[in-house]
Amino acid sequence: MGSKIVVNNYGSFDVTMAYGKGSTCYDVNGKKYIDFLAGIAVNCLGHDFKPLVDAVSKQAEKQIHVCNYFTSDTGVEFAEKLLKATDFEGVYFGNSGGEANEAAFKLARKYGFLNGGEKRRVIYTLESSFHGRTLATLTATGQEKFHPPYFAPYVQGFKTIKPNDWEAIKTSFDDTTAALMIECVQGEGGVNLIDPKWAQAAAQAARKAGAIVMADEVQTGFGRTGSLLASDELGFEPEVVSFAKGVAGGLPMGGILFRGKANGVFKAGDHQSTFAGNPLACAAGLVVLNELQKPGFLEGVKEKGEYIRSQIKSWKNKNVGEVRGKGLMIGADIVEGLSAVEVEKKLLENGLLTSTAGKNTLRLVPPLNISQSEIDEGLEILRKTLETF
Amino acid sequence: MGSKIVVNNYGSFDVTMAYGKGSTCYDVNGKKYIDFLAGIAVNCLGHDFKPLVDAVSKQAEKQIHVCNYFTSDTGVEFAEKLLKATDFEGVYFGNSGGEANEAAFKLARKYGFLNGGEKRRVIYTLESSFHGRTLATLTATGQEKFHPPYFAPYVQGFKTIKPNDWEAIKTSFDDTTAALMIECVQGEGGVNLIDPKWAQAAAQAARKAGAIVMADEVQTGFGRTGSLLASDELGFEPEVVSFAKGVAGGLPMGGILFRGKANGVFKAGDHQSTFAGNPLACAAGLVVLNELQKPGFLEGVKEKGEYIRSQIKSWKNKNVGEVRGKGLMIGADIVEGLSAVEVEKKLLENGLLTSTAGKNTLRLVPPLNISQSEIDEGLEILRKTLETF
Ligand SMILES: Cc1ncc(COP(=O)(O)O)c(C=O)c1O
Ligand SMILES: Cc1ncc(COP(=O)(O)O)c(C=O)c1O
Repeated sequence: MGSKIVVNNYGSFDVTMAYGKGSTCYDVNGKKYIDFLAGIAVNCLGHDFKPLVDAVSKQAEKQIHVCNYFTSDTGVEFAEKLLKATDFEGVYFGNSGGEANEAAFKLARKYGFLNGGEKRRVIYTLESSFHGRTLATLTATGQEKFHPPYFAPYVQGFKTIKPNDWEAIKTSFDDTTAALMIECVQGEGGVNLIDPKWAQAAAQAARKAGAIVMADEVQTGFGRTGSLLASDELGFEPEVVSFAKGVAGGLPMGGILFRGKANGVFKAGDHQSTFAGNPLACAAGLVVLNELQKPGFLEGVKEKGEYIRSQIKSWKNKNVGEVRGKGLMIGADIVEGLSAVEVEKKLLENGLLTSTAGKNTLRLVPPLNISQSEIDEGLEILRKTLETF
Repeated sequence: MGSKIVVNNYGSFDVTMAYGKGSTCYDVNGKKYIDFLAGIAVNCLGHDFKPLVDAVSKQAEKQIHVCNYFTSDTGVEFAEKLLKATDFEGVYFGNSGGEANEAAFKLARKYGFLNGGEKRRVIYTLESSFHGRTLATLTATGQEKFHPPYFAPYVQGFKTIKPNDWEAIKTSFDDTTAALMIECVQGEGGVNLIDPKWAQAAAQAARKAGAIVMADEVQTGFGRTGSLLASDELGFEPEVVSFAKGVAGGLPMGGILFRGKANGVFKAGDHQSTFAGNPLACAAGLVVLNELQKPGFLEGVKEKGEYIRSQIKSWKNKNVGEVRGKGLMIGADIVEGLSAVEVEKKLLENGLLTSTAGKNTLRLVPPLNISQSEIDEGLEILRKTLETF
């Protein structure tokens, strides 16, 4: 098939997907896969979720896109409900996680300029973080492998701090710091948990130096870790939260929430994007938010995550090292000598969609509404496959 | 209504849209507007266009999103048909015009590095151009008003050249030049036409210096100017074309087409975006491409554009200066002493959606399939409104 003409950005597998039902996908040859991937933490309500399909169809008929000279009824409704649900004062919508972080960085820079002039330009992110593929978000990404010489010069004004390093907190922030951005659970970095106490202390130190604090919740936000926002549980109360991935159940959408010192920084003309906040994505966002807010939904995410982690641990498979995560963002280290990518490939062959992250970690980020039987079916494939190595 | 909580990025008008039919929109109060705006050149097939609604609904049921580890049947079909229609060798999909240009810039930098090392880093864009709102695309935008001090430091390695300036061609490009990017008709800059001879000569000079040539067709692409790509008519044969806006009939999508020296520059891992090339947007893209390729469709765009321009000129209204454009990308200068924004506001009041661009230009970018009766209805509102000043 013609897959070679679409840029093979990741080194894709030679699988062409056709459709999905719940947390099960089917490729063009009719082969079935249990979905522990959700399009990399995107399809939070799985596939062919009726309320989502209906909302998208209905809005497509009503109006797909309205430019930002005006609002749309659907856009206003989603913004209002989102702010009510999250304790933030304002929201800016964009179309991806990269765009969300670009908006956050521009807001941070303006905040820094207004509160310290040309000197206050530095944005701190965490080592091992991932923030996107635009030039600025790539620069902000705290992993050297993402900074090949051929994309240089990288954007000025970004520094990193080592997560969970208490000494670094004391020395990093000063009157040149505009913002600290914390990726709440490092997804691409390997499903690395951040110590809430450290996050709180780092945030406090950054604020003391006059900076604002931001959370990259592109992957953790919208229920992925079992709370609406992971930063709520980490307790560092960011002034800005960036989100994307699951927010619109699979439709491209991202954005930032802001409050406190970050509120009112953006003025008319400061930032924009043509498709930003289009009613089609907002209609999908309304369905997602509604599901997440149903009694028991987020608790269910936590329980499913616990269940999957405890099952994997209970196998005591020799190929698996540490198993960790939060909610349905799960990492299982693959031991030295075996490559996580090899495991991922074998799982794909055996009908389970997964991904890899960090140095050698198998990452599981299934739809948030995955059924118990699909979980068990997927775990059975995982268990058997791990035994073949 | 709650519109104030969605960032008022532009200085929006206090209108909340509800739905549309064809090239007519209705706000929440039932007020009717003729759409000469199309969400800023986005809704190329208008509103509630049945084949588009059907395709989106069907694909939403099949599968909304597949991550880039795999391809989707719909994604492959769209990529194949797009490449067949355009004479390019490869395509990368993203989610907006800004993302498309970020991809183009990264490709240009890598090309420069591979063909001249660290020295060859400079990307030229045109004065008065607009390329987006991410930090890099903002930097590339050739308008000082988009570079306030509070977003500094801007990204290194961008320079501008004055369009239609023959002297500048002789002195601009050298072995530090990685690429020249030409916005084919400057949309945000004021609907400014580029002399095809100048574009060809500039491209030739850039290539002679070892650079590649790129076209920003975010606004001009996909039929807006009456050809599939405006660069085809300008004749400078870019190695890279960025697109977005109308490509998916209103769904967020952007991307780059590449060929020749730009082909094969991106390797696995070089660039990516989570939602990139999702099957929902591709399903919409297939409908757009299919309509544009129908016999007479693009000729119709040219004729409608000619008709609108000639009608406006025929009124000889004292408030209107030069009327120009290409296809359904139309600019009418408003004379000194009257502000185009005031005209735009009055038109909105009177039921016509338009926009402004450049210094003082009224911009008309209606759906490409706007009906004759809607054109005439819109023109009548425009004529009468212009007479009230
Ligand atoms: C934490 C985080 N931030 C930002 C991004 C970039 O998002 P996108 O791919 O939608 O641009 C990602 C994508 O994986 C992410 O995981
Ligand atoms: C020529 C051009 N390039 C790039 C962009 C940026 O596109 P987007 O707003 O989708 O990021 C625009 C938007 O108006 C544009 O007109």
